Amino acid sequence: MKARVHIMLKNGVLDPQGEAVRHALGTLGFDGVHGVRQGKVIELDLADGTTEATVKDMCEKLLANTVIESYTIELA
Amino acid sequence: MKARVHIMLKNGVLDPQGEAVRHALGTLGFDGVHGVRQGKVIELDLADGTTEATVKDMCEKLLANTVIESYTIELA
Repeated sequence: MKARVHIMLKNGVLDPQGEAVRHALGTLGFDGVHGVRQGKVIELDLADGTTEATVKDMCEKLLANTVIESYTIELA
Repeated sequence: MKARVHIMLKNGVLDPQGEAVRHALGTLGFDGVHGVRQGKVIELDLADGTTEATVKDMCEKLLANTVIESYTIELA
């Protein structure tokens, strides 16, 4: 089975990488880009029967820094 | 309007970051992790009426390195 985890900086946490992308898009002539946030996506190929609770545990222990990052889990 | 772009390394391109995560999960006692791929997600806050073609243009010109990365676009 597959799981996909999205990890984004929490709202209010400064995202310099996203800000750099926003600025670069403006430089390239793309108008109307009001904001950019950049995060990570991690695709996990897991043994069948792995529960969402296990994936949550992985996020809490390794994948996300829960002080500044939030995560969402999609199982497929 | 919002757009979300997923950027992943193409299949066959070595992903050392994902491999490091896979190894670390094993070290932490999570068994049954067969593979991990790590990519980027970029959330764009765009002016209303921006077309998918414009977002695709952003991907081709800046966001993705299309030699080694593939991207998918979700508009919301």
